[in-house]
Amino acid sequence: MKTSVKSDIEIAQASKMKPIVEIAEKIGLTEDDLELYGKYKAKISNEALIQIKTKKSGKIILVTSINPTPAGEGKSTVTVGLGDAFNRIGKKAMIAMREPSLGPTMGIKGGATGGGYSQVLPMEDINLHFTGDLHAITTANNALAALIDNHLQQGNELNIDQRRIVWKRAVDLNDRALRKVIIGLGGPLQGVPREDGFDITVASEIMAVLCLAADLKDLKLRLSRMVVAYNVHKEPVTVGDLGVEGALTLLLKEAVKPNLVQTIEHTPALIHGGPFANIAHGCNSVIATTSAAKLADYVITEGGFGADLGAEKFLHIKSRSAGIKPEAVVVVATIRALKMHGGVAKTELAKENIPSLTLGFANLQKHIETIKSFGLPVVVAINKFITDTDLEVQTLLEWCDRENVPVSLTEVWEKGGEGGIELAQKLLEVIGKEENNFHPLYDLSDSLEQKIQTIVQKVYGGKDVDFSPKAKKQLIDFEKFGWSNLAVCMAKSQYSLSDDPTKLGRPTDFTVTIREFKPSIGAGFIVALTGEVMTMPGLPKKPAALNMDVDEDGNAVGLF
Amino acid sequence: MKTSVKSDIEIAQASKMKPIVEIAEKIGLTEDDLELYGKYKAKISNEALIQIKTKKSGKIILVTSINPTPAGEGKSTVTVGLGDAFNRIGKKAMIAMREPSLGPTMGIKGGATGGGYSQVLPMEDINLHFTGDLHAITTANNALAALIDNHLQQGNELNIDQRRIVWKRAVDLNDRALRKVIIGLGGPLQGVPREDGFDITVASEIMAVLCLAADLKDLKLRLSRMVVAYNVHKEPVTVGDLGVEGALTLLLKEAVKPNLVQTIEHTPALIHGGPFANIAHGCNSVIATTSAAKLADYVITEGGFGADLGAEKFLHIKSRSAGIKPEAVVVVATIRALKMHGGVAKTELAKENIPSLTLGFANLQKHIETIKSFGLPVVVAINKFITDTDLEVQTLLEWCDRENVPVSLTEVWEKGGEGGIELAQKLLEVIGKEENNFHPLYDLSDSLEQKIQTIVQKVYGGKDVDFSPKAKKQLIDFEKFGWSNLAVCMAKSQYSLSDDPTKLGRPTDFTVTIREFKPSIGAGFIVALTGEVMTMPGLPKKPAALNMDVDEDGNAVGLF
Repeated sequence: MKTSVKSDIEIAQASKMKPIVEIAEKIGLTEDDLELYGKYKAKISNEALIQIKTKKSGKIILVTSINPTPAGEGKSTVTVGLGDAFNRIGKKAMIAMREPSLGPTMGIKGGATGGGYSQVLPMEDINLHFTGDLHAITTANNALAALIDNHLQQGNELNIDQRRIVWKRAVDLNDRALRKVIIGLGGPLQGVPREDGFDITVASEIMAVLCLAADLKDLKLRLSRMVVAYNVHKEPVTVGDLGVEGALTLLLKEAVKPNLVQTIEHTPALIHGGPFANIAHGCNSVIATTSAAKLADYVITEGGFGADLGAEKFLHIKSRSAGIKPEAVVVVATIRALKMHGGVAKTELAKENIPSLTLGFANLQKHIETIKSFGLPVVVAINKFITDTDLEVQTLLEWCDRENVPVSLTEVWEKGGEGGIELAQKLLEVIGKEENNFHPLYDLSDSLEQKIQTIVQKVYGGKDVDFSPKAKKQLIDFEKFGWSNLAVCMAKSQYSLSDDPTKLGRPTDFTVTIREFKPSIGAGFIVALTGEVMTMPGLPKKPAALNMDVDEDGNAVGLF
Repeated sequence: MKTSVKSDIEIAQASKMKPIVEIAEKIGLTEDDLELYGKYKAKISNEALIQIKTKKSGKIILVTSINPTPAGEGKSTVTVGLGDAFNRIGKKAMIAMREPSLGPTMGIKGGATGGGYSQVLPMEDINLHFTGDLHAITTANNALAALIDNHLQQGNELNIDQRRIVWKRAVDLNDRALRKVIIGLGGPLQGVPREDGFDITVASEIMAVLCLAADLKDLKLRLSRMVVAYNVHKEPVTVGDLGVEGALTLLLKEAVKPNLVQTIEHTPALIHGGPFANIAHGCNSVIATTSAAKLADYVITEGGFGADLGAEKFLHIKSRSAGIKPEAVVVVATIRALKMHGGVAKTELAKENIPSLTLGFANLQKHIETIKSFGLPVVVAINKFITDTDLEVQTLLEWCDRENVPVSLTEVWEKGGEGGIELAQKLLEVIGKEENNFHPLYDLSDSLEQKIQTIVQKVYGGKDVDFSPKAKKQLIDFEKFGWSNLAVCMAKSQYSLSDDPTKLGRPTDFTVTIREFKPSIGAGFIVALTGEVMTMPGLPKKPAALNMDVDEDGNAVGLF
């Protein structure tokens, strides 16, 4: 991507961390409030989480972006750099981010902990097993699956229709061969044969549930509501019906505590939870975000994918569920990505191209409009790449000026927090000055169709919504089950504002087709699937695993 | 089992632990030598593990038992209590034990961390996710599986015969429906359809490898040797052929470090690794045992199942691989179990029954003879139960006297270390006095058939060995592959000295049938399977999970 002498892992390994106990002191936590995982990682204890609830909440700033392209936007890097920048200008700031999945780590080079001089540390640990949260979720997911199959085997008291078990198994790996499987083979002692499949752990509803839970009690309540199957009368069967919500909560009692780490510049960061951004809401845990707000005056957090998915879900699902009101939204854009939205091929990105760049502004424009329609102040962050020409940058800055939107050229990858100071200052300005009339675009009392119409028209800029016959039939069932007042979670291509990934820029006049719904009753939303959504990635021909090793001192080699 | 007002978890939760940093100080480790996992668990750092290698090794005492019965023997409880007893009489002692698997925890009430006042703490954590070792092994196991299927999908350069992939997937759960599965369904983009199956994680060869590895370098070497499949020419394909031993080592780099915890009486304990005791060797890690020996003057450790499996494998596989020479062996017996070996039904165990008890001595006798045949001093520990009558205990004590074997009545469950002081003293006596001519019963240069003959005749007291046609054919292949000089790992019923679980006591004149072999080349042994061996347990009709919960303070409820 950027030409730099040092790789992300080299920069990370060369950075000197402070003991996490010292980092915790900055935000008023003592060693007693922490559960250490080595010297540089800690979970915050239950007692401390309860204690800080009485504190006044700091201001939350959401970082989102234009529609992602293969050129890269650097949303996580800007999030980290912005947290550092706030601290550099004397503000008490924290970062709240998602924790990465092992699947992509083993598959494709590239971490999820920021980049350059804007990274969270220890990046090796965070990208490997970290504090075991994802393993706990995998285990809870698969324990539930085993308990369902055991229920079938032991007499099936709940009359579960074995053809209608919707709970899948999970591994935190990219493993395409597990997408569709048949289990229970080998005769009557080996279970009931049936179709099944594995999702990657971050696509498990348990991940979404953990990330939306307010506390341990709420976690158990949400787990108990999860629908795992339908019985022979086509009625939902829940975890509560199976009576195992206590066991699942027990398996998750450590995973639900947020993880404290630090950036290269020692800004405290809570890295916790990471649900899929298509079939789930794509944000770090509510517990991490709200706890960070209790511990700092400014919290920088991010949503998944672009603003049409990540910010929409942050604002409609997470904020509503957690009672969060963000103070401002940063929309990250890069010159390269805007040029792709303007029609430039990936191979041609290094060349200056003002006409295409200008065409690409339309994508950014739509996301700015969307954020404003939520009643929120917005600032554009240009994440600078070395190939950007002065003229290109100037053109974007001038366009923002004409659009009357604050903009800042950030150089956080290269310079860390120093490169984000102007962005931080602009944010402080809009927070102090601009009106904040934050309001959702739909009400939960709207019908599910209405909610989807609202998102498609107001957030995507589309014309209409088509519902497949299957989807229409499902809506009738959902009404009967009392699920109509849940939020909607759109599973749509992240590459386009529409449901067609090839339509870059700002498509108009399009219709979005809802193929099918997937209820996530524990999470509290109905997933609306527009196309085929991959919930179990595959490995590439040359997986990143081939380059990985451990040196004689036990350090990671070849990890990014 | 025993009538007591308090359950194991009540005793455990009422016990006051010391910070693990204080426990570490007792064995000469500073906070810098530890990687803390909360206040009461820690891994020992690589640096510390290397540093202590130059120290003189302490004495290792192996705890084993008669053939297990449903009456229970309490081998782990005696191991813990004995460690405490050594400390009580002023000896610097440590315990090295296996870490439990989550599968049984969710299935059947009952932990693996000792019982009563002889437990290791924090028992809830140890029985749940602990420090994530098993999750790391599950992940490495399944990453390897995904990489194999990806190899098939991406052109199959190694010409793997997809019908001869022997590497299975794993979950750390009891899940019978995953025993036999078909994966890769759904068309050409979803992998190559083939038969597969899941083992419980403790049955993964990676667990055996981790437990036999001397260090990180040896771990990688062993991983690279693991056979995952055969190619179309029926030649073995290894992890090294796939080039992913570095990635697997990376995934295991934390899991390979031993975990320091404490007993109720604050005796330091290393709890690390726990391979199956049938298709693997059933002992905690070599790294834990040898490190404990560097840190203490006496190390109490245990083998799996009875002496015919656990001690035989400890002495032939683990000791040989690690260069360990145990000083003495404790054979644990209970009056109840001996009565079952003498023919009493489980429901009748509470009644005094001297004739049956006396008949049952034959089982104990064989194990004593076996340990002596290895050239090792032996002491019998009677693990007292409340239903034992004075006359029964007296009868056993007198029998031991006549057999000229030291014996001690231990009450460690009820009294902790205090109840094991006499046992500790008797051990010190035999270690000081008796000759120790430890030697294996077979040489690695013996043929595989010879090795099995030796075990069956000298350890089991059987007459002969039968090899199935399949097993004979496999032996020819193994000769060709150069595997004949590996150790043998017997997979036999734990309930009988023979391969027929119904033959209790001391059967004679029996023939053991070897049905099939399973090479574990990374671990360094050939598993000889006598019957059907279950490597994936199922859940009972009412799984323990149904009783589990978390209270408002985040504590486990209903766990044991």
